[in-house]
Amino acid sequence: MTYELHYWPMIPGRGEFVRLALEQAGADYIDVARRPEAQGGGIAAMMERLEDEPVRPPFAPPFLKDGDRVIGQTAAILLYLGPRLGLVGEDEADRVWTHQIQLTIADMVAEAHDTHHPVGVGLYYEDQKPEARRRAEDFCENRIPKFLGWFERVLAGNPAGPAHLVGGAVSYADTSLFQLVEGLRYAFPRAASRALAQAPHVAAHAERIGQLPRIAAYRASERCLPFNEQGIFRHYPELDFG
Amino acid sequence: MTYELHYWPMIPGRGEFVRLALEQAGADYIDVARRPEAQGGGIAAMMERLEDEPVRPPFAPPFLKDGDRVIGQTAAILLYLGPRLGLVGEDEADRVWTHQIQLTIADMVAEAHDTHHPVGVGLYYEDQKPEARRRAEDFCENRIPKFLGWFERVLAGNPAGPAHLVGGAVSYADTSLFQLVEGLRYAFPRAASRALAQAPHVAAHAERIGQLPRIAAYRASERCLPFNEQGIFRHYPELDFG
Repeated sequence: MTYELHYWPMIPGRGEFVRLALEQAGADYIDVARRPEAQGGGIAAMMERLEDEPVRPPFAPPFLKDGDRVIGQTAAILLYLGPRLGLVGEDEADRVWTHQIQLTIADMVAEAHDTHHPVGVGLYYEDQKPEARRRAEDFCENRIPKFLGWFERVLAGNPAGPAHLVGGAVSYADTSLFQLVEGLRYAFPRAASRALAQAPHVAAHAERIGQLPRIAAYRASERCLPFNEQGIFRHYPELDFG
Repeated sequence: MTYELHYWPMIPGRGEFVRLALEQAGADYIDVARRPEAQGGGIAAMMERLEDEPVRPPFAPPFLKDGDRVIGQTAAILLYLGPRLGLVGEDEADRVWTHQIQLTIADMVAEAHDTHHPVGVGLYYEDQKPEARRRAEDFCENRIPKFLGWFERVLAGNPAGPAHLVGGAVSYADTSLFQLVEGLRYAFPRAASRALAQAPHVAAHAERIGQLPRIAAYRASERCLPFNEQGIFRHYPELDFG
């Protein structure tokens, strides 16, 4: 069965956490909204699908279709895909822990987004620049070190070693942490570099995940969208408090 | 086995979503940080437990201890407790959908929190009042109607009827939506009242969940902490754009 991923076609955004899991597993999937409109692609068709779903509608993109199943919320999509893609352990304790890490990554992603949109998602960045500077300063000086410090502690405490977040194999939490670190490096190069110097396991982990053959091949392909200033991780030098 | 809930002892906060599930199930639990210090209660002891957890540490309260298991992240705690407390359906589709709703509730909770802390969690509300007014205006005028509209659609679309979010029985998503609506009513009485008038199923749902015998008894007890201005849902009249 081919998975259908539905997400904004111009940004990596939250969809990228799903894409990386699908890619690492070598899964068969279509990135629907990026197809030509004649093939059901484009934003209008995606939004129509959101509106038309009568039962169990997703709140927002990304959402995944697997046959008749429609699943929204990035972390819920990964909860669903994890066992199917072999990207989570077999036992319940490992599954809940992997999910707990994913939710903490999601919290940090939301905070990274809010650095450029502290006042409201409906407004432009240009309309909230002073507020953004205050929020970004707090994010760079307090939140990045706090979150990366926690990931460092998780890697250091893994009884199977710091190569993975959970046990001795790649899980969706690993590909997600990789994407988070990449995003921080893009958006806040100075603040991220300073914080990563204090989190050597996290830095080495991102390096290693980026070199996994399927991840590296994906990132070199046209399937992978670059970071840009429409996405979650935006590089505005005035918000990088290094 | 008695569950141990660890959370800030002075606010309902995110811990309340876990408390309501435990209470609705009639589960045996201890609200550890609210006990006297001599019995391991208090904030200092809770933070020490967070710091001392060598493997699989939670990022922040709330966290749950179930024997040797320690689980953080509100939604992950509910994912773990749901089947144990009988507060989620048997089949995987229902479980993922219930979790998807919980994650959407969590998103709205985070946005409600950020109305009074748009710039940074480390600062006081008093130090970010102008930013808070801008964020709260967007929240009241756009986000509350959008989220409540989605919950309305979910209830209206439930094939088993609008009494529950998933199927025909109470799930942890129901107790969580109840708490969300109560919080909005406390913090933004005018904006919530206006939005609930457009979401009759949501209003009726909250009414019904609040009247469940165990929920009603809990809410009348001293175990239930009232909303206040240290929590997530704070009533600042200047932020209620009705």
